Amino acid sequence: MKKLHKDRLKIIPLGGLECVGMNMTAFEYGDSIIVVDCGLAFPEDDMFGVDFVIPDITYLKENADKIKGFVITHGHEDHIGAVPYIFKELKTTIYTTKLTMTLIEKKLEEHEMMKTVKRRVIKYGQTITLGDFRVEFIKTNHSIQDAAALAIYSPAGIVVHTGDFKIDYTPVYGDIIDLQRFAELGKKGVLALLCDSTNADRPGFTPSERTVGATLDRIFNEYKKRRLIIATFASNVDRVQQIINMAAKYKRKVCLQGRSMLSVIGAAIELGYIDDHANTIIDMEELNNYSPEKVVLITTGSQGEGMAALSRMAANTHKKVTIVPNDVVVFSSHPIPGNEKAVYNTVNALCDIGAKVILEDSTHVSGHACQEDIKLIYELVKPKYAIPVHGERHHLRAHAELAASIGIDKKNIILLHDGDVLEFSEKKAEVKAQVPCGGVLVDGLGVGDVGQTVLRDRHRLAQDGIVMVVLTMEAYSGQVVAGPDIISRGFVYVKEAEGLMDEATDVVIDALYRCLDKNQTGWGKIKNAIKEDLSDFIWKRTNRKPMILPIIMETTF
Amino acid sequence: MKKLHKDRLKIIPLGGLECVGMNMTAFEYGDSIIVVDCGLAFPEDDMFGVDFVIPDITYLKENADKIKGFVITHGHEDHIGAVPYIFKELKTTIYTTKLTMTLIEKKLEEHEMMKTVKRRVIKYGQTITLGDFRVEFIKTNHSIQDAAALAIYSPAGIVVHTGDFKIDYTPVYGDIIDLQRFAELGKKGVLALLCDSTNADRPGFTPSERTVGATLDRIFNEYKKRRLIIATFASNVDRVQQIINMAAKYKRKVCLQGRSMLSVIGAAIELGYIDDHANTIIDMEELNNYSPEKVVLITTGSQGEGMAALSRMAANTHKKVTIVPNDVVVFSSHPIPGNEKAVYNTVNALCDIGAKVILEDSTHVSGHACQEDIKLIYELVKPKYAIPVHGERHHLRAHAELAASIGIDKKNIILLHDGDVLEFSEKKAEVKAQVPCGGVLVDGLGVGDVGQTVLRDRHRLAQDGIVMVVLTMEAYSGQVVAGPDIISRGFVYVKEAEGLMDEATDVVIDALYRCLDKNQTGWGKIKNAIKEDLSDFIWKRTNRKPMILPIIMETTF
Repeated sequence: MKKLHKDRLKIIPLGGLECVGMNMTAFEYGDSIIVVDCGLAFPEDDMFGVDFVIPDITYLKENADKIKGFVITHGHEDHIGAVPYIFKELKTTIYTTKLTMTLIEKKLEEHEMMKTVKRRVIKYGQTITLGDFRVEFIKTNHSIQDAAALAIYSPAGIVVHTGDFKIDYTPVYGDIIDLQRFAELGKKGVLALLCDSTNADRPGFTPSERTVGATLDRIFNEYKKRRLIIATFASNVDRVQQIINMAAKYKRKVCLQGRSMLSVIGAAIELGYIDDHANTIIDMEELNNYSPEKVVLITTGSQGEGMAALSRMAANTHKKVTIVPNDVVVFSSHPIPGNEKAVYNTVNALCDIGAKVILEDSTHVSGHACQEDIKLIYELVKPKYAIPVHGERHHLRAHAELAASIGIDKKNIILLHDGDVLEFSEKKAEVKAQVPCGGVLVDGLGVGDVGQTVLRDRHRLAQDGIVMVVLTMEAYSGQVVAGPDIISRGFVYVKEAEGLMDEATDVVIDALYRCLDKNQTGWGKIKNAIKEDLSDFIWKRTNRKPMILPIIMETTF
Repeated sequence: MKKLHKDRLKIIPLGGLECVGMNMTAFEYGDSIIVVDCGLAFPEDDMFGVDFVIPDITYLKENADKIKGFVITHGHEDHIGAVPYIFKELKTTIYTTKLTMTLIEKKLEEHEMMKTVKRRVIKYGQTITLGDFRVEFIKTNHSIQDAAALAIYSPAGIVVHTGDFKIDYTPVYGDIIDLQRFAELGKKGVLALLCDSTNADRPGFTPSERTVGATLDRIFNEYKKRRLIIATFASNVDRVQQIINMAAKYKRKVCLQGRSMLSVIGAAIELGYIDDHANTIIDMEELNNYSPEKVVLITTGSQGEGMAALSRMAANTHKKVTIVPNDVVVFSSHPIPGNEKAVYNTVNALCDIGAKVILEDSTHVSGHACQEDIKLIYELVKPKYAIPVHGERHHLRAHAELAASIGIDKKNIILLHDGDVLEFSEKKAEVKAQVPCGGVLVDGLGVGDVGQTVLRDRHRLAQDGIVMVVLTMEAYSGQVVAGPDIISRGFVYVKEAEGLMDEATDVVIDALYRCLDKNQTGWGKIKNAIKEDLSDFIWKRTNRKPMILPIIMETTF
């Protein structure tokens, strides 16, 4: 590690650049560290059995005394999801906006951590002092309310972090993004801009959330005589608001479906972020009081998640809602890359029942800025350094090209990797060191006890199953007193492969007695001989490579 | 099963409607059966360890004496892939066009079946007699050459099967789809149209393959000083031809990468379906004789397939090609639904190396008809019955709505499921029975020996691993002489969980001696007690459910 300067600003992404979703960035100056966001990532397809992935905070634990607080930009899982896990290991304060804090508190309640985690709700325009840093919260637009950009004031200069954002001139709830403040900061002089890259490869402007309203109106009008079931993200409070507005207009009742939908929208209603003056929302129990064309269900499952309400309806395993051919199911969402297959599985199941399915571009708008919006932010903020964040590597690359196209000096456009320590001197910004980083796998109650070895085994097991060879030897004589028995799971359907298993037993016996005849009674040698011979035999006969596990026991007397 | 009429036409989809890709449809009349296509499907994500899926041919085997032949529409895997497996069980003749036959023969050679499978190459316009049927091959356009639609003449009337098709007025090679013949058949009167649904949800017309040429020209022109690497489907001979044309124009050499690319394009060159008058194609060994900007690599891997050439280049594990920042990688393909994540993993890896990646709509066109093209075929053929084929359920639904929109009587639009026996009487077409159907899983050399039980076990193993409890009991006394030992794989990283494993052993010993103390020496009872107690303990401590496998051995003397 190169010598780092204590009195220089350092930006250290601890997650989110390699493992997208696991957003967490540390800012360090002198004896002060602040951390922006605390997200989790959902596991890759090949992380068998893993529930989710959280950032490695080795560096933060080693510097725990410096940490002045966590600042959270908004309430999506990829920005708040790791809070309960990380705050079991760190004692510090969370600073964020009202809805975001409410959503964090729901997590803390589940983990019985409400008393142990200090929290402070911050308003837009407010500035807090955290050691050598001051942090100002700036109003933005996004697909959840109370999203904030941050102006981070350090002795080295101002860094602006947009968080996830879009520019919405006609938001459904609340104010327009505070473009003037971005401009004002730009006038003061901004050292670096960390800006959302999610849509950096999409030309044009992101349409207003309100444009979805027109589409919903058309759908409500066209299908007046049919039940409507609309799937969307639970966290998209504004979308739910628009559906409620339409329901009021078309005299329908709204019934919320799915645990996270009830939880997030419940929180939004408590905070007064949902306007239901027409009393459209009804409980599940009241649903049967209304005829189908008089209700609209708003449900989770827009990404084809196996256990979500819509997926269960499509599979006909939902306890209370049964899809019928007269239903109209609207996906007010686009499939997130990687979820296409799951989404279309749900769509196919719904089509098979005979329901009308609407999955079109106009039923959803993105919550992230497109190219022209990003350019606007650059023009207002005019940063010296551009540091693309939030997105896969190809998004970050597209963002870098975009920044270059509007005149940011190429050498000041910095594509970081997780763990990089970017240090700012007066003249330049340079990656000077690496800190530990990467995903910590959470499986059930275990945090970090599933690593590469376990995952490798799970892969092997998933691919071709396991074949166990068990035998017992007498402690002193080395004589075989039980077995060898062969047991397999996930390998072949044994009833169909009896002949194969008999031959396999012969192969094992041959290997075993070859060793014993040569007086090789060391378990290691016997195990190896069995493993090699049996692997060869199975590969030749089946072209498969199950995990072969010889187990030798020894009599205890 | 309802009584079926021998002297009525029956259409029986044996695959392709539920399990997309596994295309196979039987046509039966009197004592004659003909089968159209013989495809395989790639496994769903949850079919662990499965290589591919082929149709269940129980019905065909039971009626083997009636089968007059297999008629193949074109040479894609989802139409020819199952040939070697199916023809191990059925003795009949394959009828198809030249390139399709050549691709089938490559498979037969691999399986050493060239001598056992009868084959006959058919030309466009030619009609063959197969029992009570006559089958005419009609020229179509598709993303592979020699694609054919079929006019199937039966005593009950003419059925037109489009195969996979598009309408290309300016094909790169060969003729335009024979629209006149479709019209002529329509004039004669067509009983039923089985038409491609792949793009039935896309409005408008499918652009000509030639439009990709313009985009390629722009790219070749823009990146004159950089090496070009273009990924596309090996089977898209016309695309490869267009790249060769551009290479000739811009004085570059072409080098083919990837096993299937070399194989398919090799076959196309042999048959004269590729025009390389400028001698642009060079061998891998000659590559180093040219500077990077003088070559273009055409490679497999456009779908992010793990072992394909481009994926290996991106992962820096390709033996001969190393990607450098100056490279321009073009995806001349769109991700097939379900492959998006894999494709973007490749793109991200290439971006990380610093290569320029081009993945845009204009670098690819579909090989399937869009809505306006499909309408045209309906207007030419004017069938009595519309039977949407080729597509997921939601495509079939969209196709049905499309057919209704142009005036096909709704009760004559028939959405079939695999295994349905659709019988045509003079008055109506009706599903009268079901035959066995579904995917047969192929894993290594095993066909059908991996079923639901094995897959369920593989899932369980993949999710949380396996915990084995082994103990040996003396045959007569029932005394425990070895163990109990606990061994796990894929569960937790044992070195980190020694305490847990020690406690687990105590739980097992308690369960074991509780049984023995009660004189319950039956293995079943002991195994159950161990399984239950250990499952409970592990769930409480870890929230995981590994497969628990108690193994009790008995001493042999």
